[in-house]
Parts: sequence; C-alpha cells; structure tokens
Amino acid sequence: MSATPAYDPSNVFAKILRGELPAHKVYEDDKALAFLDIMPRCPGHALVIPKAPSRNLLDVAPEDLAHVATVAQKVAKAAMAAFKADGIVLQQFSEEASGQIVYHLHMHVIPRHLGVPMKPPHVEMEKPEVLAEHAALLRTALGS
Amino acid sequence: MSATPAYDPSNVFAKILRGELPAHKVYEDDKALAFLDIMPRCPGHALVIPKAPSRNLLDVAPEDLAHVATVAQKVAKAAMAAFKADGIVLQQFSEEASGQIVYHLHMHVIPRHLGVPMKPPHVEMEKPEVLAEHAALLRTALGS
Repeated sequence: MSATPAYDPSNVFAKILRGELPAHKVYEDDKALAFLDIMPRCPGHALVIPKAPSRNLLDVAPEDLAHVATVAQKVAKAAMAAFKADGIVLQQFSEEASGQIVYHLHMHVIPRHLGVPMKPPHVEMEKPEVLAEHAALLRTALGS
Repeated sequence: MSATPAYDPSNVFAKILRGELPAHKVYEDDKALAFLDIMPRCPGHALVIPKAPSRNLLDVAPEDLAHVATVAQKVAKAAMAAFKADGIVLQQFSEEASGQIVYHLHMHVIPRHLGVPMKPPHVEMEKPEVLAEHAALLRTALGS
C-alpha cells in the first residue's frame, strides 16, 4: 500500500473520546485515555489510546505514541496487581492486514496467567457488570 | 506473581549489545538497537530493544520505553516501504505467561501482507543470506 489513509473521526473510539459512547474507563490524562476492551481476550484486557486523532502506528505523532506507551506501562503494572497476573501481552495493529478493526490507534494491554490461553479476538462480548468490576479493580490499582 | 525478577545480563540480546553475538542490525542510536528476528513470523520481522538493561515492560524506565516505541515506529514505516507491506503488527511480551523467551525487553515489528498469515513463533530459523538481504532493504528504507 502507499500512504496511510486519512483519519476518520466517525470511528467508535473517537466517539468515546467525544463522550458520544460510554466506556469502562480506567485512566485518563490530557493526552491519553485507557478503557476496557468490551471483547476481552483475557480478564482486564485494556486499550490505551491517544486523544489526538491518529489512525495507527503509521501516522501517530511520535510524542503521542511515546505517551501511549508509557500509559500502557502504567496500566500493565496496575493489571499485574489488580488481577494477580503472571505476565502482560502488549499489542498494536496497524491496517487491515494486521487485524486492525477500529481506526483510532489503540495499544492492547492484556494480563496473562500461566496456562490460560487468550480467547480469540472479537468473539465474545463480556457482561457489563464484569467489565465494571474489572475497571474498578484497575482504577484502584492505578489510583485513578 | 510479585516483584519482577532481576535483569540477567547473560541473555542473548545483552550479548548482541555487547558485541558477543552477531545480529542483522537495521538501526542503532545511543539508546536503542533494532535487528532482525532470526525466526521471523513474516519477512522483515524486526526487534527493537533499549540499550539500558531492562527485563520487560514491568521494569523498563518510562523514557527508555518511549524511545523504543518511537524507534519501532521508524522501523515500521521503513518496513512498509521496504517490503511493500499492507500493515504492521507490534507486539511485546512480558514474563513467561505472555510468551517471553528472551529476558531483555524487545518490541516486535512485524510487516503484514493481506491474506498472508504469520508463521507460528519460534519455529523456523531463516537462512542468513535472506536475513542479510532483508536487513539491507530495511537499512536503505531507514537511511541508516
């Protein structure tokens, strides 16, 4: 492919940022937001996004990417404590060929437990009350 | 698990940093190094590591993580051009439960093509001459 396509502000994460859609938020600052994936691959699966419009890794401003990475680290450390996790998978997908579905950059932070496989992506919607409980656990661990 | 285990300087990436093992390097600056994975999941699969000792996401200094992320972006953009890729997968694994094998933080930058699946991890060693050719393509695209 050639140039990265333009950012489309109708994507669902832009709607979350504008308050047009709800989310189970776990962290927010002036440049980034973190909330739970509604189809978690493991309990506590969170997404970290920049507030600035950015389609993915190919067009994000380096300083926004750097900030998203450091917020992902905060969320990862909190998830280790909140979910008594054994490890963390960090993932970011750019463009359809990689598996990107929502075209606002998002970094997946997935708590892992030894011997427990990840669920396949985009398959099972988690119950809102479970997401709310997990978001509360993460917020407590983050002090946010 | 509790605290992150201490950094072990006998890992293979530390040996690459010390010049004790060879690598197909594609980018280097004072704080980070990028080189090809010898068991690529797709052609051009690169790894970006900080020069400072760091086991994974759970102990890396935020500024080193931020730098690794921005170098990963440079490598990703170069890989899109060098391999005419359609997308990029970024991955980072922390601790055994996540699939981490080498205990020096590394960010995977994996060029993807539509319809071409990734190979399973840690299965097939690529020929040195292919790695050399791919590293040269990436270095040209990076101007490094």
